[in-house]
Amino acid sequence: MAGGGGDHDELKLLGLWASPFVLRVKLALSFKGLSYEYVEEDLYHKSSRLLRYNPVHKKVPVLLHDGKPVCESRVIVEYIDDAFPVAGKSLLPSDDPYERAEARFWAGFIDDKLMASWIQSIRGKTPAEQEEGMAHTLDAVATLEAALKEKGTPFFGGEEVGFVDVVLGGVAGWVPASAALYGTRLFDAERSPCLDAWLGSFSALEEVRAVVPDVDALVEYGRMREAEIAAAAGK
Amino acid sequence: MAGGGGDHDELKLLGLWASPFVLRVKLALSFKGLSYEYVEEDLYHKSSRLLRYNPVHKKVPVLLHDGKPVCESRVIVEYIDDAFPVAGKSLLPSDDPYERAEARFWAGFIDDKLMASWIQSIRGKTPAEQEEGMAHTLDAVATLEAALKEKGTPFFGGEEVGFVDVVLGGVAGWVPASAALYGTRLFDAERSPCLDAWLGSFSALEEVRAVVPDVDALVEYGRMREAEIAAAAGK
Repeated sequence: MAGGGGDHDELKLLGLWASPFVLRVKLALSFKGLSYEYVEEDLYHKSSRLLRYNPVHKKVPVLLHDGKPVCESRVIVEYIDDAFPVAGKSLLPSDDPYERAEARFWAGFIDDKLMASWIQSIRGKTPAEQEEGMAHTLDAVATLEAALKEKGTPFFGGEEVGFVDVVLGGVAGWVPASAALYGTRLFDAERSPCLDAWLGSFSALEEVRAVVPDVDALVEYGRMREAEIAAAAGK
Repeated sequence: MAGGGGDHDELKLLGLWASPFVLRVKLALSFKGLSYEYVEEDLYHKSSRLLRYNPVHKKVPVLLHDGKPVCESRVIVEYIDDAFPVAGKSLLPSDDPYERAEARFWAGFIDDKLMASWIQSIRGKTPAEQEEGMAHTLDAVATLEAALKEKGTPFFGGEEVGFVDVVLGGVAGWVPASAALYGTRLFDAERSPCLDAWLGSFSALEEVRAVVPDVDALVEYGRMREAEIAAAAGK
């Protein structure tokens, strides 16, 4: 996906290849057909570049647009949609404030409820914390499943991918990878058939296949991280 | 502030008078000069109306626009700005995607870092949790103070109030009230002179004075809540 500027301004993405939050930004850039330079950061040794461009959170993703930083994945995705209008490829519905509000509501829900709980289910400090995280994850999945079922369309954006799909799409490679690592699938055909079908349709899109990390590589990365965390805890 | 429709569509706000998150919405409506019907909810007995319109979070504020619900305070404020454009009264800068992204970034920071920690500093389950909350609150205040100082304008929106001011403005009555209740001022002239001056300028605005709760009433409400929480804990 690397490639300098071209017919538009210079875009540079600071990321970590395995991060679902970075993937959101890659997905937005991919759907918009924007080329950019990708810079892989080091999780363990934050670069002076990262600290300079995101001094508040010191986290990836950071998008640099002509050298000006935009931070926080949902803010970046909305910025890309906003700053690079492409006819027929709006992520947020451009003509309806109510639908924009609904999309922002669900994007917030995905971060505050689904992602936060899912991370806790894997990285919680105690088995009780992990169990609590998994219980909240399943609640959040049930709520999202009901929302998509009620919409009755293949994507949250309707017939086409929209803002919520891109925000949720960050989990694309991690759903099969974490099933292999931890034994539980985030979305499955029995508990959440609409979300399971959503993941299938989403993952099959050319724009997604171009940027989603390889599942085997994510599994290997997950095993490495588990080993590092266990070593750090002196286990 | 009550008043039905008029020259625009029907707006109804479900709220709790003392909530800083509800105040954000009242502020946005006030700055836009929009009239609306206000419905006070009961913190202890959630109405079927609240559960119907916000089944996901079951929380105020909820804005009903011609009967259609919008939930989550930041989403609502942005919706009001989006759905009711008033010349010269945009909360988000209407002509600059980068400035919109910056405003969304700081609004997110206020919720994720400042409000979350401040609430923990008051409602944390143990003294250690409360102390941790206060430490993070002071960090977040220092970061916001630096951001406002760097801007060099009276408001985050520049010379006029913008999205970040409205989101932060939810604390307006609670800064003096919580100082009286708990002894620590969120913004003060020594630690955060820019934010302290910001609060003074913001609170003096007619649009703010029209909707901000009375400080003495907030103090009384805070004492009552403390007593209820202590009673529930069997203290």
